[in-house]
Amino acid sequence: MSIIRFETDYQEGAHPKILERLSSTNYEQTSGYGIDPHTQRAKDLIRSVLGLPKAEVFFLTGGTQTNTTVIKYLLSPCEGVIAASTGHINVHESGAIEATGHKILTLPGHDGLIDPQDLRKYLEAFYSDPTYDHMVQPGMVYISYSSELGTLYTKQALREIRDVCEKFGLRLFIDGARLGAGLTSEASDMTIRDIAEKSNVFYFGGTKTGALFGEAVVFPRPEDFDLRHFRTLIKQQGGLLAKGRLLGIQFEVLFEDGLYFENARHSNLQAMKIKNAFTEAGFRFLIDSYTNQQFPILTPKQDRALREKFSYELWQPMTDGNLAVRFCTSWATTDEAVEELVSAVKILGDD
Amino acid sequence: MSIIRFETDYQEGAHPKILERLSSTNYEQTSGYGIDPHTQRAKDLIRSVLGLPKAEVFFLTGGTQTNTTVIKYLLSPCEGVIAASTGHINVHESGAIEATGHKILTLPGHDGLIDPQDLRKYLEAFYSDPTYDHMVQPGMVYISYSSELGTLYTKQALREIRDVCEKFGLRLFIDGARLGAGLTSEASDMTIRDIAEKSNVFYFGGTKTGALFGEAVVFPRPEDFDLRHFRTLIKQQGGLLAKGRLLGIQFEVLFEDGLYFENARHSNLQAMKIKNAFTEAGFRFLIDSYTNQQFPILTPKQDRALREKFSYELWQPMTDGNLAVRFCTSWATTDEAVEELVSAVKILGDD
Amino acid sequence: MSIIRFETDYQEGAHPKILERLSSTNYEQTSGYGIDPHTQRAKDLIRSVLGLPKAEVFFLTGGTQTNTTVIKYLLSPCEGVIAASTGHINVHESGAIEATGHKILTLPGHDGLIDPQDLRKYLEAFYSDPTYDHMVQPGMVYISYSSELGTLYTKQALREIRDVCEKFGLRLFIDGARLGAGLTSEASDMTIRDIAEKSNVFYFGGTKTGALFGEAVVFPRPEDFDLRHFRTLIKQQGGLLAKGRLLGIQFEVLFEDGLYFENARHSNLQAMKIKNAFTEAGFRFLIDSYTNQQFPILTPKQDRALREKFSYELWQPMTDGNLAVRFCTSWATTDEAVEELVSAVKILGDD
Amino acid sequence: MSIIRFETDYQEGAHPKILERLSSTNYEQTSGYGIDPHTQRAKDLIRSVLGLPKAEVFFLTGGTQTNTTVIKYLLSPCEGVIAASTGHINVHESGAIEATGHKILTLPGHDGLIDPQDLRKYLEAFYSDPTYDHMVQPGMVYISYSSELGTLYTKQALREIRDVCEKFGLRLFIDGARLGAGLTSEASDMTIRDIAEKSNVFYFGGTKTGALFGEAVVFPRPEDFDLRHFRTLIKQQGGLLAKGRLLGIQFEVLFEDGLYFENARHSNLQAMKIKNAFTEAGFRFLIDSYTNQQFPILTPKQDRALREKFSYELWQPMTDGNLAVRFCTSWATTDEAVEELVSAVKILGDD
Repeated sequence: MSIIRFETDYQEGAHPKILERLSSTNYEQTSGYGIDPHTQRAKDLIRSVLGLPKAEVFFLTGGTQTNTTVIKYLLSPCEGVIAASTGHINVHESGAIEATGHKILTLPGHDGLIDPQDLRKYLEAFYSDPTYDHMVQPGMVYISYSSELGTLYTKQALREIRDVCEKFGLRLFIDGARLGAGLTSEASDMTIRDIAEKSNVFYFGGTKTGALFGEAVVFPRPEDFDLRHFRTLIKQQGGLLAKGRLLGIQFEVLFEDGLYFENARHSNLQAMKIKNAFTEAGFRFLIDSYTNQQFPILTPKQDRALREKFSYELWQPMTDGNLAVRFCTSWATTDEAVEELVSAVKILGDD
Repeated sequence: MSIIRFETDYQEGAHPKILERLSSTNYEQTSGYGIDPHTQRAKDLIRSVLGLPKAEVFFLTGGTQTNTTVIKYLLSPCEGVIAASTGHINVHESGAIEATGHKILTLPGHDGLIDPQDLRKYLEAFYSDPTYDHMVQPGMVYISYSSELGTLYTKQALREIRDVCEKFGLRLFIDGARLGAGLTSEASDMTIRDIAEKSNVFYFGGTKTGALFGEAVVFPRPEDFDLRHFRTLIKQQGGLLAKGRLLGIQFEVLFEDGLYFENARHSNLQAMKIKNAFTEAGFRFLIDSYTNQQFPILTPKQDRALREKFSYELWQPMTDGNLAVRFCTSWATTDEAVEELVSAVKILGDD
Repeated sequence: MSIIRFETDYQEGAHPKILERLSSTNYEQTSGYGIDPHTQRAKDLIRSVLGLPKAEVFFLTGGTQTNTTVIKYLLSPCEGVIAASTGHINVHESGAIEATGHKILTLPGHDGLIDPQDLRKYLEAFYSDPTYDHMVQPGMVYISYSSELGTLYTKQALREIRDVCEKFGLRLFIDGARLGAGLTSEASDMTIRDIAEKSNVFYFGGTKTGALFGEAVVFPRPEDFDLRHFRTLIKQQGGLLAKGRLLGIQFEVLFEDGLYFENARHSNLQAMKIKNAFTEAGFRFLIDSYTNQQFPILTPKQDRALREKFSYELWQPMTDGNLAVRFCTSWATTDEAVEELVSAVKILGDD
Repeated sequence: MSIIRFETDYQEGAHPKILERLSSTNYEQTSGYGIDPHTQRAKDLIRSVLGLPKAEVFFLTGGTQTNTTVIKYLLSPCEGVIAASTGHINVHESGAIEATGHKILTLPGHDGLIDPQDLRKYLEAFYSDPTYDHMVQPGMVYISYSSELGTLYTKQALREIRDVCEKFGLRLFIDGARLGAGLTSEASDMTIRDIAEKSNVFYFGGTKTGALFGEAVVFPRPEDFDLRHFRTLIKQQGGLLAKGRLLGIQFEVLFEDGLYFENARHSNLQAMKIKNAFTEAGFRFLIDSYTNQQFPILTPKQDRALREKFSYELWQPMTDGNLAVRFCTSWATTDEAVEELVSAVKILGDD
């Protein structure tokens, strides 16, 4: 019997509708680099979902590339980007931000989230330090929704962060690699329009929501920036796909009938079944997540037993010898796979 | 009647065998970032084609990204890369190389090619200049095969370039975005093993040879470099695809039965039919190319006439008022399309 | 008898008034990093010379550092700087500009100068190229006054360059490493106010005009830029001197009684005596310079003879076997040294 | 009565012997950029002090520049530098290190020092993380002697740090901006030869030890690195002084008769008198320093009283409302100034 994998949300290919569309459009001849009707239509569909007909939309092939390109574009040479110490850009992007010349200014992560009060205090202290012009200037706040730990900002927290940003002249960038999972979570009190209203720039992650690859960057109020060279920067950063329509076609499929959110909702539902199974079996969690990443804590013995049939990520050894692990679901996670896991958890709890 | 397009070699999707394989593997669960059996097998197939079982192979998503990552990895901070002034890195990559901190040191392009004697003279002059340590140090030579203008180095020229590189301690990097078209050209006197033997690093371009996207970087003698961090640099440069197997699957299909070279050969054959048609109709060419890019010279009137049914790139206005244009073929260029064009050229010549 | 050196304009220390002032202020206690009364006064003196009480002035320690800092500050990530191929930033700064991520876009040098028509044509061609957004965007023009070859823009040429810059939205930066020599040349038709009026930023080079070291960057119309972080960038680039007052003190001395221009005038006068000696003795010149660099052409035999008593720079071997050489004078070049050279040239001509 | 300043160790000019030597050598004509007899002799003097006739020595104009140049030269693109969170490069260099593309990997500072055990644990955890190749690779350890907080590593701690570096293949770089103060402290158990033996590269800071400016970088075992381009990198980073002999002359004076260490010893002695005064008057200290920086804790009232006659840096407000402040001495701090302060402190303690 083969192992059922819950390691990541990018371990399968793409939603079959995407593959079908790639096939049915395969012999169309279009211009390269995103100057094609599919890309145009995908942008319009996204604008329509946002209710922002003037929003600027750009497509890139991956998350690290997107974070790097947006941050490099919006910061001036002496500015840095504020992020939670657990933020993806600070940990798992191989120094991509620093490679563009910018420091990441870290705040403590609270289950993956920045505390608006920490942010305010940091900035007040910064500007009251007489040597502040010998230091990296804060230029932007980077947050993730949902976060790297599956958690969610409340609408109130986002508003407070936004207020601090406005007070201190910072831009606010929301990493949406798992934006779908965030917005369709039962614990979310926000809509996509809140995201667009509060941020200066954000993106819809495609890779983790049913696309082969691809992220859609949105500037909701493009008039706030000079975006004439953004496309050139995408090219410079190696993110301008020659067959750019591949991104257009995928986001067309994802946004023409709500498939993007449907995929995300599916992954959350499967994750919540897993969460409930662990909860009912009496397990504790490292983090209380309501999205597609779940972090139960296992004893080493339980871990060994589960790994006979399932794979998942070891997240963090606990000081008491137990193990915090991560189960991740996706648009492709089947009911059968979840039921197998739920049954196994039940037995584990009974032992 | 719709326009038949000969603008680029990336205006269609992918060879249908690639789409089929993406579909048939879609629900497989694999680890991300290229740690999967498809990627492993694709690497082995490439090693086998090269007869180099120890060659190191890495997959990236695009050409600019590949050029940037390789050049950044192999140069030290004071080194620059020597290229023809027409080289892709010097013109159409939005300053991607400079964005990594390295200068491009240009030599005159001779129909897209570096002259080995120019190279030798440049280096001799450089090291005899007493102020040479106030200048960017030459660290690498970058050439393209086939070149941006469809032309080809002879085996002899490549050998001479290689000799100069060895004498002056430079690495030699071959941009293979159109390597297939180069090697399968009737005018090529080289095999892939010559490329691997003479260069320190090169790549098989997938984007222009039937893949959706993707380039396969090869270090034929990996023992010459410390490649431990190359994967980390791919990540840093935003080129490490989460669903890395997409690259593996595509290159598996391209290299398991020779499809890569078959696609390239097809594009060249179609291009040569076009070349012959123009030649027989008495047209001159900007460049004498034997690969999938053809550069005939049209009068403005001829250009207007042709554009009623065909699209192609305006390459360069000539000083006499005529127009050098580019016709580009691909793995997908049909016999029908070529026949239509051939007929139209014949008529044009008869006028 | 020791060799008399005419190699460079930085082969002696500093004008004695500067050393005296450094001594007389040595035990003053001041704040670091340019927050001191001397630096403040030096800025005011420069503003006064310019007749621009609101101009912003910054002091840095060297020319390469200054060029790099100004260019990095004013360009956005996709922009490059246009310069003559002979421009200092393109040749003798070890890739400092590229190290900040920016490409240098070269135009042919005409005796070290950019032709305004070349500039206009380059920009027109750039924006009419349909692939222009895959290329580095022109953001700034860099020129030197006097140039690296001792030549001078006319007021008319500077006006035309400025007009092109305005038309295409480019900033204009004048490298003034030898600004004094330029403005005090008998061939100059410009004043310092023309420089300030036509450029967006320029600098007074101190190193080659009697200071130990130091350059004074001037933004004549600071309201055109957000300069809040310029000081921080100087720090980031390693150019913010801890004992910043050393720069202030030097520029105080140079600008309180016109010593800056007096030094420059002296170097030009000495150079013109040398020029006249060569001219009268029937020598040709590589370049017709009226500043402190002179480029006569010698036969190898003449060169050997002169080098018995003098040192100077071999500039360029000519195709006919002769040698273009450079004689450079400074604030410290004595009448005796020049007379010795003039006599030797006369004898050389008589042979 | 004017204020007596203890704010920094760079608030005066230079030791008078340096100014005298600059005057006496002023009219010598020498080649630029450090190719002159003074620079050569200064290197030899430093080699002699170290007992390392083959050590490589380079002179730069400032500390940030030196840190940046050394770190950029020795790291490959995916590597970062490990430093205490309080390290100068992490706080007060305006992001200079990140501007070269490298991340600073911070460890907790213990009164400004890295704990060797923290370092070991960090590295063990790093390499046991399965995602480590998605992270910045540790390439170098940066420490300061004496530290930014006036503290000192023991010989034993330095040995342990060195052992960890060797085990994990890291280079060890010692920032010696205050190396003199460190080595001449009564609390130091190291000699300059220990520094040279344990580090891969370090520097003698001149700016804070009696020079106008200047730092002398030493590679004690140059055969471990390819240093051919180091000079070119200094140029690229804007640190190659045209009148390079100014650095040579200053370091000649500092090292020909032990003036470097004499200056440092003087500053420490003056600081210890201040420390003793505060101790005897019953004050506590933020940090127990035995070098030229002292950090007593004052009540706001005491602070107000002292500031009537003295200036010094507010270092850090304490949570109890008191103020940690910094008194800094230099080669130029007079006995009279210290006696005034000592008297004032005594009165303060008596109140």
